[in-house]
Amino acid sequence: MTNQRIKARYRLQTTGDGRRVAEVMAGEQSSGTFIAIPGESAELKERSAARVEHFSELQQAAPAPLPGAVAGELRTYEMELSWPVDNLGLSLTNLLATVAGNLFELKQVAGLKILDIDLPDAFAAAYPGPGFGVAGTRQLSGVEGRPLIGTIIKPSVGLSAAETAALVDQLCEGGIDFIKDDELQGDGYYCSFEDRARAVMEVIERHAQRSGKKVMFAFNLTGELDEMQRRHDLVESLGGTCVMLSLNSVGLTGFNAFRKHCRLPIHAHRNGWGYLGRSEQNGWSYVAWQKIWRLAGVDHMHVNGLSNKFWEPDDSVIASARACSTPMFSDKSCAVMPVFSSGQSAKQIPATYQMLQSPDFLYCAGGGIVAHPAGIAAGVRALRQSWDAARDNIALATAAQSHAELKQALETFGS
Amino acid sequence: MTNQRIKARYRLQTTGDGRRVAEVMAGEQSSGTFIAIPGESAELKERSAARVEHFSELQQAAPAPLPGAVAGELRTYEMELSWPVDNLGLSLTNLLATVAGNLFELKQVAGLKILDIDLPDAFAAAYPGPGFGVAGTRQLSGVEGRPLIGTIIKPSVGLSAAETAALVDQLCEGGIDFIKDDELQGDGYYCSFEDRARAVMEVIERHAQRSGKKVMFAFNLTGELDEMQRRHDLVESLGGTCVMLSLNSVGLTGFNAFRKHCRLPIHAHRNGWGYLGRSEQNGWSYVAWQKIWRLAGVDHMHVNGLSNKFWEPDDSVIASARACSTPMFSDKSCAVMPVFSSGQSAKQIPATYQMLQSPDFLYCAGGGIVAHPAGIAAGVRALRQSWDAARDNIALATAAQSHAELKQALETFGS
Repeated sequence: MTNQRIKARYRLQTTGDGRRVAEVMAGEQSSGTFIAIPGESAELKERSAARVEHFSELQQAAPAPLPGAVAGELRTYEMELSWPVDNLGLSLTNLLATVAGNLFELKQVAGLKILDIDLPDAFAAAYPGPGFGVAGTRQLSGVEGRPLIGTIIKPSVGLSAAETAALVDQLCEGGIDFIKDDELQGDGYYCSFEDRARAVMEVIERHAQRSGKKVMFAFNLTGELDEMQRRHDLVESLGGTCVMLSLNSVGLTGFNAFRKHCRLPIHAHRNGWGYLGRSEQNGWSYVAWQKIWRLAGVDHMHVNGLSNKFWEPDDSVIASARACSTPMFSDKSCAVMPVFSSGQSAKQIPATYQMLQSPDFLYCAGGGIVAHPAGIAAGVRALRQSWDAARDNIALATAAQSHAELKQALETFGS
Repeated sequence: MTNQRIKARYRLQTTGDGRRVAEVMAGEQSSGTFIAIPGESAELKERSAARVEHFSELQQAAPAPLPGAVAGELRTYEMELSWPVDNLGLSLTNLLATVAGNLFELKQVAGLKILDIDLPDAFAAAYPGPGFGVAGTRQLSGVEGRPLIGTIIKPSVGLSAAETAALVDQLCEGGIDFIKDDELQGDGYYCSFEDRARAVMEVIERHAQRSGKKVMFAFNLTGELDEMQRRHDLVESLGGTCVMLSLNSVGLTGFNAFRKHCRLPIHAHRNGWGYLGRSEQNGWSYVAWQKIWRLAGVDHMHVNGLSNKFWEPDDSVIASARACSTPMFSDKSCAVMPVFSSGQSAKQIPATYQMLQSPDFLYCAGGGIVAHPAGIAAGVRALRQSWDAARDNIALATAAQSHAELKQALETFGS
């Protein structure tokens, strides 16, 4: 018995009596149902009922109501519910059913976003958190004091293992720090996981012998649990230093089982995040969602990128990146490395650094490297030149005057 | 190499050139990116590119655009994309990143729902499908020719194991067929999984000895994989005949690992479905989503209920239930039993039967049983009486004249 409480904060739109709707939500997600029942005694409610801890109306226009909502004038509220940990125990999986279960479906709910989750300290000991995080990633990659410059294998899918390795060869030649599989690349016919891992690691080890720098490659081992464990062991045996998972494909129980087995940093891909988080009316905030995965034990989390090819505005991207390093518990921060990706090239590095106010990030450009007109190695060098300019607070246009690769990058990808 | 293709159908809203946006989506989810790259050769595109198979404009008003969408006049389209299976192999987890990955985040996308997925026959052999389905569930529960009448332990959370068993005793006494844990009930301090399983199964076995009928109890074993396996084995050793999982908490990789271990029917709870499926603009249709889980191997799928306490209209509920028994492959139907639940009582049984045109369903009433004024056993009898009336095509009001429990149920819960 812990006597501690889990808290979750929501933005609610409703046409009803907002306070009453909050009470219905608390009831539905604990001891109540749609009708008073004999078993819900005062003593049982005392030990198990969810509570409305905070409730206030927001002076902001509500987005259009979700389908099926009770008609009427919409109002927007912010509210916090809390639950006794003892209702469910220290279980992240069961936590999801409690804080983000049926409550999105109530007809009194015209809009509901889960904004944040606050887990009591008892949870910190129940899950591992990141095994490597920022410090471990820096140690394995040998990159200190600056962002890791990374890329994504492009084309995303269709290259053979040998073609992938040839691309990796050029990237290593250019001085890249980090490479990842595209999330579409798994274990397909044209490029099996094993062939790719062997071909790529042979190249990476050869460059490491030459230069002393081992490029970190995040192999996408998303699949069944036994496959993921086997692929992990293969990568480790080949000298690899990172694995990648699509969180929304794998899910929490599979992730947690894999995490127990895993001895390498986990690069967490958030593909599918759009169906969880893009709607204004419905779903998850990234701030709430990333906490679950950090405590479960990812090391790198995707946060999109500035001026990305997706919908997300820059302030939202930076808020996500900052969330990744905001401590979760008093004695266990679970800080992870934010990964900037999506339509990135040399042009966004200075603004990313200025807005984040930290060099602790991983910056991935896919097309922004391989489409460089002077070739892949030049594409990598342009990114490094962009970082040097950002670090020294020199305008990119100025730096481009003395750096040909950067100049070409800005001409090709925009500045 | 299979040379077969995966297909997915979408409803798209955009302000752009709809056909062009469809091509961007196909590119993003296969060999393309935001810029032309040297590696995307004609040969590579031929073997790996996604194709727009079908595209047409719908004459329907678009819902409000998602945030970040390009401004302009919104139009609505239906489109089908296809991918070579060889891009990813026969992997449901990797399928998710392909058909439902980053594409929801494109700024050209002002709204996107995945409507359906069509998997080629090669997938049928790669995953088990339901281990029990309708026939196996009927055999284990001993219920033939009519729906299974079920209930949910209420209060959802807060009862001790002994209190839960006492409730089960009354339910068995009343002739219930099926009981499930509420999804909020897992392995909490007041009611540990093991204590609950032992106490409940002792009651169920006692009644089975007496009446020859073993009530099916779906124990919620959602948690970590090792816990789920251990709990499954405990339930099996105690003579239990069903286990329950929250699909959105467990996720696909954990589910598939558990499914290999599982020797009992899997009652699949969809809590959290609201954040995936309620929005008109964004996310999943139930028709697409349930196919993944049926092939993975669930046996019972929640579909909400008629006149439910949630937002969903009746036609959508019935469409979901019908989808659960629509064959997925020519030689492997993967049909599962639809579960009607949420604010259900005696009043909705006739309409459910009439609309579904089949007795193959599981009908769960929680408050609709335990809040019956004449007690729990009377609550169960009222549901059975409602079914008898539905089967014989007798109006409930007429049947209530000669059945006291049904009469009281209709007075209490509405008719």
